[in-house]
Amino acid sequence: MMRKGERNRISDVAGVTVGHYTVDTPRHHTGVTVILPAPEEPFLFTHKMVAASAVLNGFGKAQGLVQIEELGTLETPIALTNTMNIGKVHDALVEYMARQAEAHGVRLRSVNPIVGECNDSALNEITERVIEKEHVFAAIESAGVDFALGDVGAGKGTTCFGLKGGIGSASRVFEVGKETYTLGVLVQSNFGEMENLRLDGKPIGRELAQKLASSEPDKGSIMIVAATDMPVTSRQLQRIIKRAGVGLARLGSFWGHGSGDIVIGFSTAQRICSEESSGTIALRALNEEYINIPFSAMADATEEAVIRSMMEAGPVGNRHSLAEFVKR
Amino acid sequence: MMRKGERNRISDVAGVTVGHYTVDTPRHHTGVTVILPAPEEPFLFTHKMVAASAVLNGFGKAQGLVQIEELGTLETPIALTNTMNIGKVHDALVEYMARQAEAHGVRLRSVNPIVGECNDSALNEITERVIEKEHVFAAIESAGVDFALGDVGAGKGTTCFGLKGGIGSASRVFEVGKETYTLGVLVQSNFGEMENLRLDGKPIGRELAQKLASSEPDKGSIMIVAATDMPVTSRQLQRIIKRAGVGLARLGSFWGHGSGDIVIGFSTAQRICSEESSGTIALRALNEEYINIPFSAMADATEEAVIRSMMEAGPVGNRHSLAEFVKR
Amino acid sequence: MMRKGERNRISDVAGVTVGHYTVDTPRHHTGVTVILPAPEEPFLFTHKMVAASAVLNGFGKAQGLVQIEELGTLETPIALTNTMNIGKVHDALVEYMARQAEAHGVRLRSVNPIVGECNDSALNEITERVIEKEHVFAAIESAGVDFALGDVGAGKGTTCFGLKGGIGSASRVFEVGKETYTLGVLVQSNFGEMENLRLDGKPIGRELAQKLASSEPDKGSIMIVAATDMPVTSRQLQRIIKRAGVGLARLGSFWGHGSGDIVIGFSTAQRICSEESSGTIALRALNEEYINIPFSAMADATEEAVIRSMMEAGPVGNRHSLAEFVKR
Amino acid sequence: MMRKGERNRISDVAGVTVGHYTVDTPRHHTGVTVILPAPEEPFLFTHKMVAASAVLNGFGKAQGLVQIEELGTLETPIALTNTMNIGKVHDALVEYMARQAEAHGVRLRSVNPIVGECNDSALNEITERVIEKEHVFAAIESAGVDFALGDVGAGKGTTCFGLKGGIGSASRVFEVGKETYTLGVLVQSNFGEMENLRLDGKPIGRELAQKLASSEPDKGSIMIVAATDMPVTSRQLQRIIKRAGVGLARLGSFWGHGSGDIVIGFSTAQRICSEESSGTIALRALNEEYINIPFSAMADATEEAVIRSMMEAGPVGNRHSLAEFVKR
Repeated sequence: MMRKGERNRISDVAGVTVGHYTVDTPRHHTGVTVILPAPEEPFLFTHKMVAASAVLNGFGKAQGLVQIEELGTLETPIALTNTMNIGKVHDALVEYMARQAEAHGVRLRSVNPIVGECNDSALNEITERVIEKEHVFAAIESAGVDFALGDVGAGKGTTCFGLKGGIGSASRVFEVGKETYTLGVLVQSNFGEMENLRLDGKPIGRELAQKLASSEPDKGSIMIVAATDMPVTSRQLQRIIKRAGVGLARLGSFWGHGSGDIVIGFSTAQRICSEESSGTIALRALNEEYINIPFSAMADATEEAVIRSMMEAGPVGNRHSLAEFVKR
Repeated sequence: MMRKGERNRISDVAGVTVGHYTVDTPRHHTGVTVILPAPEEPFLFTHKMVAASAVLNGFGKAQGLVQIEELGTLETPIALTNTMNIGKVHDALVEYMARQAEAHGVRLRSVNPIVGECNDSALNEITERVIEKEHVFAAIESAGVDFALGDVGAGKGTTCFGLKGGIGSASRVFEVGKETYTLGVLVQSNFGEMENLRLDGKPIGRELAQKLASSEPDKGSIMIVAATDMPVTSRQLQRIIKRAGVGLARLGSFWGHGSGDIVIGFSTAQRICSEESSGTIALRALNEEYINIPFSAMADATEEAVIRSMMEAGPVGNRHSLAEFVKR
Repeated sequence: MMRKGERNRISDVAGVTVGHYTVDTPRHHTGVTVILPAPEEPFLFTHKMVAASAVLNGFGKAQGLVQIEELGTLETPIALTNTMNIGKVHDALVEYMARQAEAHGVRLRSVNPIVGECNDSALNEITERVIEKEHVFAAIESAGVDFALGDVGAGKGTTCFGLKGGIGSASRVFEVGKETYTLGVLVQSNFGEMENLRLDGKPIGRELAQKLASSEPDKGSIMIVAATDMPVTSRQLQRIIKRAGVGLARLGSFWGHGSGDIVIGFSTAQRICSEESSGTIALRALNEEYINIPFSAMADATEEAVIRSMMEAGPVGNRHSLAEFVKR
Repeated sequence: MMRKGERNRISDVAGVTVGHYTVDTPRHHTGVTVILPAPEEPFLFTHKMVAASAVLNGFGKAQGLVQIEELGTLETPIALTNTMNIGKVHDALVEYMARQAEAHGVRLRSVNPIVGECNDSALNEITERVIEKEHVFAAIESAGVDFALGDVGAGKGTTCFGLKGGIGSASRVFEVGKETYTLGVLVQSNFGEMENLRLDGKPIGRELAQKLASSEPDKGSIMIVAATDMPVTSRQLQRIIKRAGVGLARLGSFWGHGSGDIVIGFSTAQRICSEESSGTIALRALNEEYINIPFSAMADATEEAVIRSMMEAGPVGNRHSLAEFVKR
């Protein structure tokens, strides 16, 4: 068994912070969660990170994946919100990046913000799109390493295996060669049918579904963000983050039709500097003979991040918390 | 040689209309162009069209492709605008769809708007994101079959082969078996280096580049939208629309690095009804032995649509019009 | 729980038969297994089936996937063998198809045989490539609906979770709308680390690995073939067969690096006739709102097919049978 | 205009050699062509090259692409032959690699040979599969830097734009930053309709088609192999080699339906050593800001390689040589 990071969060990868803004009114349970891949210096837009995306099931609206796929780099924070609010959150990230660029003396003329979403319409009047620009800025302002889990931020209104879902996170620390690396995962969980839920292989969902008389189909989505300080190419990183699907399957998901099961990953190990003038650049990459180690870490951390998203979430509306039925 | 449609526009595909809103101020030359795949009845969201996307070069920010790739359907109009305005335009399409849904007695809880973009920052203060919701609605309101080409709408500020680019369109009419079909293309052209430009194979860009002392690199993008009334599966449609790359190459493009060369296609031939209750549905598809015919139509119509985008565009700012140098 | 087909084999899909040829000598434990999608009439090459492939992890050498991906059709039987024998088996399928074509009065000038492989070098002198053309023909000759499972054919020399692997199969029967359909899976299992093995969620691999002092890494592969009589498009079929990855994950696999985890699927529901002269063809497709049903069937049948491949395999060489430790 | 390499062949990339074996009998015009990426030391299987593949149109049977796509490496020579002979040629490469491995003291237990094909059945009794193992070995034996072009090896029986096709090659030399690099292309040309042929933009195919009364459709394929000594990641290399499609389009191809238009590329700049024990490895990659330079080189070299394949081919059977109509 691999050991967990100090906080058992994505923020165990040095430099990564997370902030939330939560809207909690009678009509609205929703929010925004922002993952900041690095401190402000050096500027992420001009010093990009290696990145990759993987689509397990594409009934989702995540924005920015085309460019990640082509160029293998990340140049902005990653924001998560509700399905109908992604336009506004996208616009907020553009404005944030323009300001940051100005502060760094850079004239921004193009930018590829990454925005993911889950559909929280069971608990949120989603067509009203209550997340505003200021909420995104507030989430960024509040970002830190000891961020809250559960029914907060973009996880305020989500549902997972018929129970309350939310924001979850977990991390794994492992050795490759003589070096120690960390891989962290953050999820916005909003998927699964109650009767399929398994914890450590045990089919606890079956009795729960009888007890709670739940028979909702698997709709909704899961957004998964992975960070690591291990040096990788974008191809290697895509292979690694795809193993999120293993973690979901262990919990009882079959990556249902109505779901956008989407993973975005980045590595903090090196920066790709767009102002570099030399013809070639030096990169470090994983010796791929060792890639089973991060494969396993990714599957484990995703599985645990989903469980934590449910265990840390209090009941909201008519959704029970998993913590009512399972001991920590 | 295939014959052209009546208007030589994407609107030669029955039901397709296009509207523009143009912003033209000293600081801003930009706009929005909306392609409406069908009249309001039946409602596109509940009666989806077969669709596909193809990425020739993915240095672009087009939104909504993940779901098109997974499900092979289109459920909203397609909007084109400038790179930094896609968030706002996305939000406008969400609002438009929510209203349309209400008018059709449908409760909208999820929607996948398609928004494409080109970078018009050479002629537009792009970070200011001047396209507002109302502009998108106005573009939709104004949509018709005889829409303007050239420096209008989302093409107001674009640059193509170092000259003025813009909105172009063309169509082809052809027989497959005993039936006659139409394929139409609309482009937002913003790509290419002047010295590479070829018209019908002739390297006119070389002398133009000397004359105008132009030596800008190939930056920018091209968004290509294709419509047809031919019945196809999404796989077949993807094969067809990928041939846009042939049309671009004939003009002298090599799908440059800095470019988002992205194609989105849809077929009006049949609707996928999400409220259908039977277990299977009947589809018509192309007999693939004939697919070279639409391949050729797609390449030709893309090539001509780009030329028309340039020929119909007047000079804007310091960008000459191709019409100054070439006779119609 | 979905019910199983009569034979709990891929041959529960009407028309599908399977044949083996096994080589079992002191130096060689290997073979070939052929899946015949249909009886000889109508000729599969001129009356193709809708098909799809999905690569979970691509460290494998399966042949013929490029064309399946482009055209979405299957035109030959599918053969499975050992990694180094695929050239010879490919050549045998070409010869078989040429003969069949002649018998049907067709002049064969091109053909796309599908050959999959697992690496059985732990029990087989693999570089000697002992599978000959005649063995492939013999496997085809022997094909039937009640074929053997376990250490036979292409599964003679394979290893799964450190125990003996082999050929496994399972099927599921389900209703979609008012119709009943069958989905069957056949696997050549050769993957997994013993300590990760789980049966119905129970981590039985941990104690087995201690008991047997096994610590081999996850090398090898799994070839998965899926058949259904449900009408689908190739895009829908690809979505369905991708869920094989869920079945593998439930068993404890994380789709290890050294593995070619590859799925090939086909539908017997309709034929694509290449001699068709009309411009369009009629297809039936799944109403995709119901696709969770075959998703679930695919995950379940894959999981069970792997278990059966192990339970039906006797011990070979130094490889124990799972049946030594687990009751049927 | 970029300058050409000394031989204007793929062998201008240091270390790359090419050998042919040609079968030329009344019934058979076919052969095999082998591209050796490097001298025998260090052993390619244990010291792999960065590689990539790109499928422009996938109606083809090329073997080995699944693993290239997953791992981004090449571990064997690349062989080209006729469509039905790929099984035998594959088997020959396995045997060659097993021998090479033995000579290097390596026990080979898995290998991924790359075999491409074109359909030469218009000039060859293709079902007879006359290329034998010894022919492949002979081609390898004969490999050198000054290899023949035209109707030789795998190009003996191919047809291009209704004229005689064959093996063509071209190279480009360019500066990136302060370094000079070479990119070379080799093609097996077997595609295109005569009336579409263009040379430097001039539509010479139209008059030729009238003169020769040719009206064959675009069937057949083109296999394209690209080599460079520029350091790249597999993602970058895939972007580069995809621009082969631009070269084909300039000649009048629209990547026809019946064609397997497939590109395989490798970089000789560095080796990936599978016996490396450290956890990470150092790589050099292209500064992607400069990638338009190899994009342009790839398009140009592909275009010229096809022209050379036709100009160097004498007439065979009823196929004229382009050299009969065009001056060199």
